[in-house]
Amino acid sequence: MERVNIKQLAAMLNLSIATVSKALRDSYDISKATKEKVIELAARLNYEPNPHASSLRRNKSKTIAVIVPEIANNYFALAINGIESVAEENSFHVLIYLTHEDFEKEKMFARHLLSGRVDGVLVSISGATTDYAHLRALEQKDIPVVYFDRVSEAEDAKRITTDDFESSRLATSHLITKGCTRIAHLAISQHTSIGKKRKGGYLQALADHNIPVDDSLIIYCGNYDEKNAASIADLLLYKKCDGIFAAVEKYAITTYEQCSALNISIPQQVKVIAFSNLQTASLLNPPLTTITQPAFDIGREAASILFNTLNKKIPPGDPENIILKSLLIERDSTSGEW
Amino acid sequence: MERVNIKQLAAMLNLSIATVSKALRDSYDISKATKEKVIELAARLNYEPNPHASSLRRNKSKTIAVIVPEIANNYFALAINGIESVAEENSFHVLIYLTHEDFEKEKMFARHLLSGRVDGVLVSISGATTDYAHLRALEQKDIPVVYFDRVSEAEDAKRITTDDFESSRLATSHLITKGCTRIAHLAISQHTSIGKKRKGGYLQALADHNIPVDDSLIIYCGNYDEKNAASIADLLLYKKCDGIFAAVEKYAITTYEQCSALNISIPQQVKVIAFSNLQTASLLNPPLTTITQPAFDIGREAASILFNTLNKKIPPGDPENIILKSLLIERDSTSGEW
Repeated sequence: MERVNIKQLAAMLNLSIATVSKALRDSYDISKATKEKVIELAARLNYEPNPHASSLRRNKSKTIAVIVPEIANNYFALAINGIESVAEENSFHVLIYLTHEDFEKEKMFARHLLSGRVDGVLVSISGATTDYAHLRALEQKDIPVVYFDRVSEAEDAKRITTDDFESSRLATSHLITKGCTRIAHLAISQHTSIGKKRKGGYLQALADHNIPVDDSLIIYCGNYDEKNAASIADLLLYKKCDGIFAAVEKYAITTYEQCSALNISIPQQVKVIAFSNLQTASLLNPPLTTITQPAFDIGREAASILFNTLNKKIPPGDPENIILKSLLIERDSTSGEW
Repeated sequence: MERVNIKQLAAMLNLSIATVSKALRDSYDISKATKEKVIELAARLNYEPNPHASSLRRNKSKTIAVIVPEIANNYFALAINGIESVAEENSFHVLIYLTHEDFEKEKMFARHLLSGRVDGVLVSISGATTDYAHLRALEQKDIPVVYFDRVSEAEDAKRITTDDFESSRLATSHLITKGCTRIAHLAISQHTSIGKKRKGGYLQALADHNIPVDDSLIIYCGNYDEKNAASIADLLLYKKCDGIFAAVEKYAITTYEQCSALNISIPQQVKVIAFSNLQTASLLNPPLTTITQPAFDIGREAASILFNTLNKKIPPGDPENIILKSLLIERDSTSGEW
């Protein structure tokens, strides 16, 4: 039996080829009734799409870009693995761009991608990013952008995050239930929504337990480890905090290093909890209590939204706001009670 | 004073524009005498090149590719940072491709890059790579390839490695001087030259100390952590090794996890040393003795060779064989003597 092609299918249905094509790939801009009519006839006549032609029409480069602040960090490494697993299922390449927390670099990458080198972009913004015009420009060129972890606050952005506020509140409360009263927060840049949310959860937990806020216990850690190390040493020696909630894994590592250098014992003198996907968290001395994000799943989810947008199952202009849950894993760095 | 342009310069010297251009950028295919003549006149007439034109002529994409097995590993993350620092100095972009130790993926990336999407390629081959035709094809298209860490053994390859054989011999000897006699080696795939060298150094150290080789103590760890964990548990429980030399950081992490699960204490029952750039090596319980590679410098060196090739300071066909030194950092995981 000779197979019908899309042109014949369209003629029989008295529809345009474009409409039939969109209906067959479940596009949002075709009515449900039309889709059903097309799919029914296509199935009856044993229509099979030419996969090569349809992919060429839809995607020019078969490539997506991932822009992240760094990769010397298990969270992003795992998220990228999640993204790649979805890209592979879609036979797409993944290009990785590292901003090293530099806003200028992020803007340069976005300009570079305007040329159509990729079909879509996944981004976790740098700590220095203060506006999103460079990423909006991509969307205006029909290159969809999906944010993950460090996201745009724009109402119409597509974004995947974890429950940062609630997790931070939980982390801080965990220290409070262990008897900590002078809890420091090693915070991410407040330019980012993630930084605000993690600090917000910390402040909420203090309020929940009627503990007054001491601004000198909130340290905004940038990207400079030496400066951080000095601030954290100062915190341990002079601010006499008894608990530390680190918003990022590397601040916890610096805390461990400083405690070791200053002969301050964890958890006897100070308890430590951190957002972390560190593979060695359970092997540290002492094992580190963590808020562990579902990094691989965040990557998969973000990539799925991007591919659904590329395949027109999601309208490019529609917002998405997916929030995945993190897990508090209690280990020895917060053990014992005062 | 009106500035001279390259056409006028060439006319005055009675040379072609191409020759003058090459001489000005210190190309290897122009004689020293000609170079001096060109540079002298250019300086005297205050010639300044048009940077935009010359970059367009020399490099089409201003982009280099980095192909690595993985990034959830501090070694590659640091090496990439080194590469990026050099790329930035040259105003180039860096695209990162992850093979996840998959030879087919590596070949696919190489095919993809044949289109001229990048000007040059830095590669650390996958553990499954058995031939280099896919990378040779790039060189035949005038896209230079520089290998780092896991390199091609071809005589004419440009490669940067560390002293893997000597470091492995040193690591194994270190365990022997601590009294270990049944030393296991957690090895990388022997398809790779790095895997052969690290095993070679291990065997040499055993020979140096007249310790017979026991093949059951050599475990080839692939990319599958669960399988590795079982092999390492078997090694600890039934092969009764008293020392473990891990060729890769992640095998050491699995060793720590298995020792913890099986209640085997490091270093009292088994001593452990590993190639590792793990940031938390000194914070582990116990702190891990490591062979630490100059990962950032390896990246910088590899990128410098690539840019020197792109800028025709190094002939594309000339081999390079740079070997950097690694460092043995002694910590508690090998402390005490039997």
